[in-house]
Amino acid sequence: MQVITVNVDGMKCGGCEARVKNALSTVDGVLSVEASFLNKKVIVQANDDVAYDEIKDVIEDLGFSVIK
Amino acid sequence: MQVITVNVDGMKCGGCEARVKNALSTVDGVLSVEASFLNKKVIVQANDDVAYDEIKDVIEDLGFSVIK
Repeated sequence: MQVITVNVDGMKCGGCEARVKNALSTVDGVLSVEASFLNKKVIVQANDDVAYDEIKDVIEDLGFSVIK
Repeated sequence: MQVITVNVDGMKCGGCEARVKNALSTVDGVLSVEASFLNKKVIVQANDDVAYDEIKDVIEDLGFSVIK
């Protein structure tokens, strides 16, 4: 198990958080997702075979920006 | 030119509106986009060759629900 932390720009409300959570929850190997627009962070617990880039791509496809 | 009106559930803030606008603005043939989370509506002015389903798919890919 690993914890992937992603810094995300563009989430501005609970609806934004919910869409990130819903989309990431469908990714194979993802165990749990927390999203905070206040902290601009998404924290994912996932199996070891889930790649950071996979998580990043899902978030970006929703229209949010992943920041370093 | 045509006007495509889509009823959208799930937009809850200006950030949600902005993501819909940004995504639809990149669709070929789309001329202008208005999005209102209060009215749950997205109104698109587009060339005649743009299909409703194309607009619908972009909105759904962002995690929003298109309602009848």
